[in-house]
Amino acid sequence: MFKNIYIYGLGMMGGSIAKAIRITNPKIKIFATDIDLGSLKYAKRMRIIDDFDSRKYKCLNKCDLIIICVPILSYNSAIDIIQQHRKSESLITDIGSTKKEIITIVKKNRSINKSFIGSHPLTGMEKISVKNSNADIFEDSFVLINTTGRSTKQNEKRIINFWRTLNCKTISVTPETHDKILSMTSHLPHILSFILVDIISRNKMIDNLDSYTGGGFKDLARLARSDVTMWTDIILTNRSNIISSITKFSNNLDSFKNLISKGDSKKIKDYLVKRKNKSVN
Amino acid sequence: MFKNIYIYGLGMMGGSIAKAIRITNPKIKIFATDIDLGSLKYAKRMRIIDDFDSRKYKCLNKCDLIIICVPILSYNSAIDIIQQHRKSESLITDIGSTKKEIITIVKKNRSINKSFIGSHPLTGMEKISVKNSNADIFEDSFVLINTTGRSTKQNEKRIINFWRTLNCKTISVTPETHDKILSMTSHLPHILSFILVDIISRNKMIDNLDSYTGGGFKDLARLARSDVTMWTDIILTNRSNIISSITKFSNNLDSFKNLISKGDSKKIKDYLVKRKNKSVN
Repeated sequence: MFKNIYIYGLGMMGGSIAKAIRITNPKIKIFATDIDLGSLKYAKRMRIIDDFDSRKYKCLNKCDLIIICVPILSYNSAIDIIQQHRKSESLITDIGSTKKEIITIVKKNRSINKSFIGSHPLTGMEKISVKNSNADIFEDSFVLINTTGRSTKQNEKRIINFWRTLNCKTISVTPETHDKILSMTSHLPHILSFILVDIISRNKMIDNLDSYTGGGFKDLARLARSDVTMWTDIILTNRSNIISSITKFSNNLDSFKNLISKGDSKKIKDYLVKRKNKSVN
Repeated sequence: MFKNIYIYGLGMMGGSIAKAIRITNPKIKIFATDIDLGSLKYAKRMRIIDDFDSRKYKCLNKCDLIIICVPILSYNSAIDIIQQHRKSESLITDIGSTKKEIITIVKKNRSINKSFIGSHPLTGMEKISVKNSNADIFEDSFVLINTTGRSTKQNEKRIINFWRTLNCKTISVTPETHDKILSMTSHLPHILSFILVDIISRNKMIDNLDSYTGGGFKDLARLARSDVTMWTDIILTNRSNIISSITKFSNNLDSFKNLISKGDSKKIKDYLVKRKNKSVN
């Protein structure tokens, strides 16, 4: 197991990882950096982390695991800094939501290439900041693992074990497959909720939205409150898969709209029954 | 307050109303009917209702409030039976999710017309059957009230008070406005989730969906498990509003897809910021 862990970017997710490590592996020392000095001071004062560095990165070279928790378009500079300051036997992982772009960035950097095993924990909250971090979000959630093709099986195993100690389940998947599947199961649902909240909030008939919405809409609106920078980066780094997923969705929505226009109750019901039988439980 | 209440259709929602009445108004006697005799026997055995009738409707004429809890396309026969068996001073309400069609059906029936005040509680669960009923779903939820234009203010007030004793908040709204707004805030989100679950479940890359979905997708998939007959009826009785809402949604989704195609990070981010600032909390 790792002795010293470095969290590069201490927002809601980074802070949640730190808290989960505290609970499950209390002997591990936790260090962090962040562009927001206030977050680092808060986290040290609350004992979420043991110490931080914000410029000279003197904690970074003590650590045997570095977890990158910044928006995807900040990976280039993160990896530059990590490469300069880390000790060479350290391993690096991350929590980024798209993988092909990240693996491409990492592959450009030979000294990092072998030490990097990507992770994507399928968990989170729509809230931001270390102050909203929560150790419980990892319990029983899936982490998708992917590699540059240059890391050893043994190192992949160490990263898998790390997540398992936080009570996560893991699955290994190529970056390409990851991005294709997630464009459907995560990126598309978020985009649908962004659009839905946008058109509803612009509707002048609706003076007090709370009065006209049940739990269904509230679940969707919750998705739409996710972090803007993170989602801009996800969209930009998985463009072609997301465009295909939107196109597939639009075509199906059009067909269903045609069924409704025709008012054919049997066909509408058949469609809903067929879909329901397939739906996850 | 009412002394005897009749629940016409004892599914999950009817059963939940009965349980909520038991807790908040223990002196009220509750009667019910349903096409499923097993549900009625179960509910009587569990003391959710005091008694039931299934053919001769001898409980119906004891009741001073009748609550219709059947799918919308079954209202015609429900209202026929209620008209034949109710006592003339009783009030009638319902829980239907579209209102214009219901008010049209009611208006055709002169003797019912004055006694009917429509209700739509914006609450529920995706589960069906009285066995899954739950008194707690009404706590703090909104009920939209609408009338045929022929009921007295005093009777409207009695129905409003009934829902308030179940700890609901109420808003009065015309059937036309109700159906326009709900096509956006409820019917559209459900249809989006039906389509999303359908295309994802047909995706051959995804062998074990649970491994690739976080909370966001699960919230949406939950919507898609709603009752099929109920949703077929909602779609058929609010067709033109739903078609307009889908069209508006599709146009906005297309525009956002164009932003993504262009890869303009500033415009994508601006769109997400603008939308987020408007989003409900």
